[in-house]
Amino acid sequence: MIGNEIKRHIEEAEKIIYKYLPKEEGFQKTIFEAMNYSMTAGGKRLRPILMLETYRLFGGKGNVIEPFMAAIEMIHTYSLIHDDLPALDNDDYRRGRKTSHVVYGEAMAILAGDGLLNYAYETACKAFDMTSDTVRTAKALKVLASKPGIYGMIGGQVLDVLMTGQVMNEEQLYFVYENKTAALIEAAMAIGAILAGASDDEVDIILQIASDVGHAFQIQDDLLDVLGNSDVIGKPIRSDEENGKVTYVTVHGINQAKEDVKILSERAVKRFTELEYENEFLKALIIFLVTREK
Amino acid sequence: MIGNEIKRHIEEAEKIIYKYLPKEEGFQKTIFEAMNYSMTAGGKRLRPILMLETYRLFGGKGNVIEPFMAAIEMIHTYSLIHDDLPALDNDDYRRGRKTSHVVYGEAMAILAGDGLLNYAYETACKAFDMTSDTVRTAKALKVLASKPGIYGMIGGQVLDVLMTGQVMNEEQLYFVYENKTAALIEAAMAIGAILAGASDDEVDIILQIASDVGHAFQIQDDLLDVLGNSDVIGKPIRSDEENGKVTYVTVHGINQAKEDVKILSERAVKRFTELEYENEFLKALIIFLVTREK
Repeated sequence: MIGNEIKRHIEEAEKIIYKYLPKEEGFQKTIFEAMNYSMTAGGKRLRPILMLETYRLFGGKGNVIEPFMAAIEMIHTYSLIHDDLPALDNDDYRRGRKTSHVVYGEAMAILAGDGLLNYAYETACKAFDMTSDTVRTAKALKVLASKPGIYGMIGGQVLDVLMTGQVMNEEQLYFVYENKTAALIEAAMAIGAILAGASDDEVDIILQIASDVGHAFQIQDDLLDVLGNSDVIGKPIRSDEENGKVTYVTVHGINQAKEDVKILSERAVKRFTELEYENEFLKALIIFLVTREK
Repeated sequence: MIGNEIKRHIEEAEKIIYKYLPKEEGFQKTIFEAMNYSMTAGGKRLRPILMLETYRLFGGKGNVIEPFMAAIEMIHTYSLIHDDLPALDNDDYRRGRKTSHVVYGEAMAILAGDGLLNYAYETACKAFDMTSDTVRTAKALKVLASKPGIYGMIGGQVLDVLMTGQVMNEEQLYFVYENKTAALIEAAMAIGAILAGASDDEVDIILQIASDVGHAFQIQDDLLDVLGNSDVIGKPIRSDEENGKVTYVTVHGINQAKEDVKILSERAVKRFTELEYENEFLKALIIFLVTREK
């Protein structure tokens, strides 16, 4: 059942995101094609859906959320394009499709990533024309600009790259998971809350929920890399092991990892009771995310 | 004389920019080092100086301009790091120093570029905490997010890459110069004007001046590549020719290029009379820029 509901939400998110993609025309057409190739490659649209549902949780209405939904998906997508580059993970496939540099060449993949990152901010700035509440929009933009950055997602990615093939201690592993994965989920949910007018205390609770969801989601991802079926996942399994990557699963073992996914996701869902609002789909989505098979 | 004045302005700009650079500490220290290596590599600091002097032209006071000065230099610097990558221009030297990927490796150079681009927006957002005029700051941010993007600098870079080794027509050449070089100079000057409270008409005049300055500056750069002394410039001369690059000089010849630099810069300087304000240094700087020897 939740599967169909999620499908409907993915379609809703994609309809919104696609409105903000560049038209494939003009002298620089190739980069628009490369950006759109990766933006339309499917995926769970997790971040925009979490953003929209958190917005709804706090009673958010109106379309000011839309450019932010597109922006966070652009940031997520640029990070995948650059991660897949030969100098980084050197992955030829992603979601069952050839990666950007395989299709468009390395130079264009670098530029498409840069283009998406920059266009994310250009797109989010469109929200200023859609509401008179400039202060609230500015607050959301500050979250959008900080969580994916050098003290957030990129910071986590850096440590992950630096430690490839080496054993990470608890603190380092936590740093990578918190920043590389959780930070963007925190941004998504916090922006939804802020734009709907949530108080600072409410945003703090949302950030805690999002952090737990992010960690659980990443550990589940690592579990799938070990236990999953490559046809279902759309990329080769055991790629972490082959790339010499240390993950939560290689450090703590499969059983502990499974147990911790359960603890984190249950804690996240329970924390919604601290808020005055309810969104049953959001709670169901979180449970689905950490029990998913791809 | 103007040389000493410029030196003083470079020092002033660097003092401001350096306040916004990340501290080299924490698990992701390496990326901070790579970012700062490129940010402190010298250069003319043209964009932040033009921004600050345009701000002053319109009577701007206060420090809200500072994070934007740092941000535009971060954007300029990220574009150089990524341009120099093996998959793009494959340059080992820049401003007489080894390029980022030579020192830090390709993976870290890609991440340092991403880090600077994202941090530019994170830094510019700090302006929201420095002024109560959120609307004006949002307006400046919109310019910062659009001019360097896929309809600006990155767009120009894309056509430049696509056309390497091929003859460009007038329209294509103009597109590359307008976007790859002029767009960022337009952003710098327009942001200075906007933050100082210039009217829309005044911002339009500034944009026209900046466009002329940008084109003249880039043609002068191409002239220096042909005529210059590599010891003075800090990179090999005739690199455009060797890389099969078509430039204004290869298309129009040295004499026409020299003539057009003169026409563009004189038109830019003359246009200041359309404004009610004066900034003699700004005018002298523009003339200096297009008569420079490095």
